[in-house]
Amino acid sequence: MTATASTVSPPGFAAGIWPCTTRLDPGGGISVGGWSLGELARRHGTPLYILDEADVRYRCRAYRDAMPGAEIAYAGKAFLCRAVADWIGEEGLSLDTCSAGELAVAQAVGFPAGRVLLHGNAKTPDDLRAATGYGVGRVVLDSAGEIARLAAITPDKQRVMLRVAPGVDAGTHASVAAGGEDQKFGFALSSGAAADAVTRVLRQPELELTGLHCHLGSQITQLPAYELAARRLIALTAAVHAEHGLALPELNLGGGHAVPCTDGDPEFDLQGFADRIRRVIRDECASFRLPVPRLIVEPGRAIISRAMVTLYRVVGIKQTPGGRTFVAVDGGMSDNPRPVLYGSGYEAFLPRATNAARPFLATVVGKHCESGDVIVRDVPLADPVSGDLLVTPATGAYGHSMANNYNGVPRPPVIFCRDGHARVVVRRESFEDLTARDAP
Amino acid sequence: MTATASTVSPPGFAAGIWPCTTRLDPGGGISVGGWSLGELARRHGTPLYILDEADVRYRCRAYRDAMPGAEIAYAGKAFLCRAVADWIGEEGLSLDTCSAGELAVAQAVGFPAGRVLLHGNAKTPDDLRAATGYGVGRVVLDSAGEIARLAAITPDKQRVMLRVAPGVDAGTHASVAAGGEDQKFGFALSSGAAADAVTRVLRQPELELTGLHCHLGSQITQLPAYELAARRLIALTAAVHAEHGLALPELNLGGGHAVPCTDGDPEFDLQGFADRIRRVIRDECASFRLPVPRLIVEPGRAIISRAMVTLYRVVGIKQTPGGRTFVAVDGGMSDNPRPVLYGSGYEAFLPRATNAARPFLATVVGKHCESGDVIVRDVPLADPVSGDLLVTPATGAYGHSMANNYNGVPRPPVIFCRDGHARVVVRRESFEDLTARDAP
Repeated sequence: MTATASTVSPPGFAAGIWPCTTRLDPGGGISVGGWSLGELARRHGTPLYILDEADVRYRCRAYRDAMPGAEIAYAGKAFLCRAVADWIGEEGLSLDTCSAGELAVAQAVGFPAGRVLLHGNAKTPDDLRAATGYGVGRVVLDSAGEIARLAAITPDKQRVMLRVAPGVDAGTHASVAAGGEDQKFGFALSSGAAADAVTRVLRQPELELTGLHCHLGSQITQLPAYELAARRLIALTAAVHAEHGLALPELNLGGGHAVPCTDGDPEFDLQGFADRIRRVIRDECASFRLPVPRLIVEPGRAIISRAMVTLYRVVGIKQTPGGRTFVAVDGGMSDNPRPVLYGSGYEAFLPRATNAARPFLATVVGKHCESGDVIVRDVPLADPVSGDLLVTPATGAYGHSMANNYNGVPRPPVIFCRDGHARVVVRRESFEDLTARDAP
Repeated sequence: MTATASTVSPPGFAAGIWPCTTRLDPGGGISVGGWSLGELARRHGTPLYILDEADVRYRCRAYRDAMPGAEIAYAGKAFLCRAVADWIGEEGLSLDTCSAGELAVAQAVGFPAGRVLLHGNAKTPDDLRAATGYGVGRVVLDSAGEIARLAAITPDKQRVMLRVAPGVDAGTHASVAAGGEDQKFGFALSSGAAADAVTRVLRQPELELTGLHCHLGSQITQLPAYELAARRLIALTAAVHAEHGLALPELNLGGGHAVPCTDGDPEFDLQGFADRIRRVIRDECASFRLPVPRLIVEPGRAIISRAMVTLYRVVGIKQTPGGRTFVAVDGGMSDNPRPVLYGSGYEAFLPRATNAARPFLATVVGKHCESGDVIVRDVPLADPVSGDLLVTPATGAYGHSMANNYNGVPRPPVIFCRDGHARVVVRRESFEDLTARDAP
C-alpha cells in the first residue's frame, strides 16, 4: 500500500492531506477507495463524508511499525462509530474513550475491554460505573475526588493511571493546550499534587496503579515538548519507586500528533518521535535504575483525519463590493465546526477539469445563519459554478464527532470505501430524526 | 405577570437574566414555573434544560405590545421544537426559518404557512422546494442565482423579500456581524447589487416582491444602527417606487436585539427601538412620499434566551498551582457551545443556602476533552462541593440548537414548566440514539 495520493498536484491537491487511495482522473475527477466522488455524490446526495478504510488501516499500521512494543490507543473522540471501533480492534490498537457514551459504542461491537482506557476531567458516577461494569483495562484518574469514588464502586480490582499536568507548553491553540498546569486536566506536577495523588491511589487496595499519563494538546509538531514531558513523568515514576518501592509498568504520553490539513502544513515526524521518545525513556530510566515502562500513545486525529473527505455541492457564488468571492455550499459549521471554533484551515478542490479558467482566491462558506460560518478561507478555485461538487480533504477528525443540527440541518452520512466497495456506515439524518425526541 | 425575578439578589442572581417566574426560596433553592430546580434534577437527572413557558409568552406579548401593527417573527434558529412552534403560533407571532429542516418542524405542528419566512444565504433546491410545497408566506432571496431558481420551481405565485447588505456596522462579534457588505449574506447596497436584484425579481412573473430585508448581527444594543439601516432600506424602497412604480408594502429589519446573559450586561431598549424605528420610517416615507410599509422584526434570542436555565451537577473541584479554582460539571461545550465559539459570558449559581462560606471566583468547566470547554469564567461561588446542583441562566438561545454529541455525550432533555406543571418536551438522548444511524 502506498501513502502517496497522486503524482499530479494541482492547487489544493497536496498528497499529504488526502486519503492514501486517492486517485486524480485525467478528466479532473477524484476517486477514493476505487469510487468516483462524483458518483458517490449522485448516489448519496450531499453533504457527504467519505472515509477511506485503507487509509485508516494504513495509519494504524504505520504507528505499530514505528513503535513496536508500544501500546497504540486510538482516541475515539476524533471520530467513533461502530465500524471504526471494529477496525481499530482488528488492527490491534487499543481504544481511548472519555465517557459512558463512547464506552457504549465500544461495548456494542465487543471491543476487548482490557484494551479500553477511560479518560475525562469530570467523569460522572455513570461514567465510572460504565467503566467498571465493562471491565476496562485502565481508568485514567483526573482528580482527588475521583480516586475515592472509583475505589468505592470497584467490585474487585481496577487498573488505573494518573493524569499528570506536567507544565509543558507545546505551542498549540489555547482551546486545546493541555500540557500546562493552569487548566482543568490532571494533577499538577510542580505543586506536589501528582505525587500526593499517587499516595492516595496506593492507599486504595481496590486500585492498581499502572503508570502516569499526560496529554499536551493538539496539532503538536515540537518533539522536544514530548521529550520534556517524558522526562518529567519518568522523574515522578522514579520518585514513586524510591518512596513506595513500586516500579510503574506503563508510561502514557497521550496524543496530539500534528496532522497537515492544508498544503504546506508541517507533518508530524512519527519515526523521529518514536526514536527520540524511546531513547529518552531508556536513558532516563537507566539514570534512575528503573525498569523501562511500556509506552502508550493515543493518536486520534493522526489515525482518522486524512482518511476522510467531505463532499459539498456549490449552491451559489457571490462577489462583494470589497472584492471577495464567496462560494456557498450546502453544508457548513454544522458538519465542520473547526474553522469557526479554532480558525482551522482546510483546502477545497473542485473535482473536475480545471483547465477552463484560472483559479482565483475564494472563501468557501456554509449555509448557516452566521457570518462566521466559513469552511475555507482564501482557497484557489477555478471558475466554480452552482451545482459543482466541492471536496474538502482531511476532515476525518472532529468533524462528524462535533457535528450538530444547527439551523435544522441534518447530519450527513458517512460512506466507507475500500477496493471499489462502498457502504453506508452512518446513514444521513432525516427530518424525522430532528424531532424524534420531541413530545408529540 | 411580572418580569422581575425576585427582590433578593445574591451574586449571579440579577433579575434581568432569569426566567420571569423564578423564585428564590428562603433556603436558597430556586423554582421556575412553580417547580423546584432541585426536584426537577432529582426526577430527570442532569444536565437538564428548564424552559419557563410563561417567560416565552411574556416576551412574545412584550414585542406585540411595544410594536402594535408590526409583524413579529420568532427566529427559530435560536431554539425550535414542536412545542415552541406551537406557542409562537398561539401568541400570534410569525416564524423565521432557514432550512427545510426548520420548515419540517413548523409543518409538523401545522404552523400557518402564510406566517412563515424562509431565510438563508445558500438555500438548496430541497430548501426551496420545501418552502413552495409548504406555501410559506415569504422567501427572503439572498443571491442572484436563487431568484431564477425559485421562479423556475414556483407553481403559482410566491411572495418574496430581498435581503440587503446595508453596510451598517452594529458593533458585534465578528462571527455574527452581518450588517456590513463584505460578508456572505444578501445583496450589497453600495454596489447597486440590491437595486439590480429588485429588477431581476420584478422580471419574474412568478415572484411577488413584498419588501426589503436586512439583519445586522447579534447582541446589538445600538439603536442608531437600526435607524441607519431603516433609512437605507427606505431609500432603496423609494428608488424602487420611482423606477418601477411599485410601493413595497413591507420592511423587514431582522433581529439581533441584545439580551443580557450576565449581571450588568446591557438590556435592549425595546420600547425605545419601537418608537425610534416607527418615527424614522414615518419621517423617511413622508419625505419620499411613500406609503408606510408594515414593519417586520425577527427576534430569536430576545424571545427565548432568558426563558431557559441549564442545570448541571458538580462533579469535581480542582485548585491549580496558579491559584485558579475549576468547578467541573457533568455537561459543557456539547450543551452550550457559545463560550468556546464566541467567548460568551454567563452566570452560574448554586441553588442552596449560600451563607456557609464566602464566595470565591471559580471557573466552571465542562467534562469534554478540551481545555477550552469552559462554561463560565470567574464567577463567584460559595464553597461548591461535588454533587452540588449548579444553574446557569439565560441559556435558551443557541444552546440546545447548537448542541452536539462530542465525546459521546447525549444531548440533555428540555423540561417545560408552567404554573406548577412540568413536562418533558424533548426527551434525553440515549446511548442507543448515539449509534442509531450506524449500520449494524
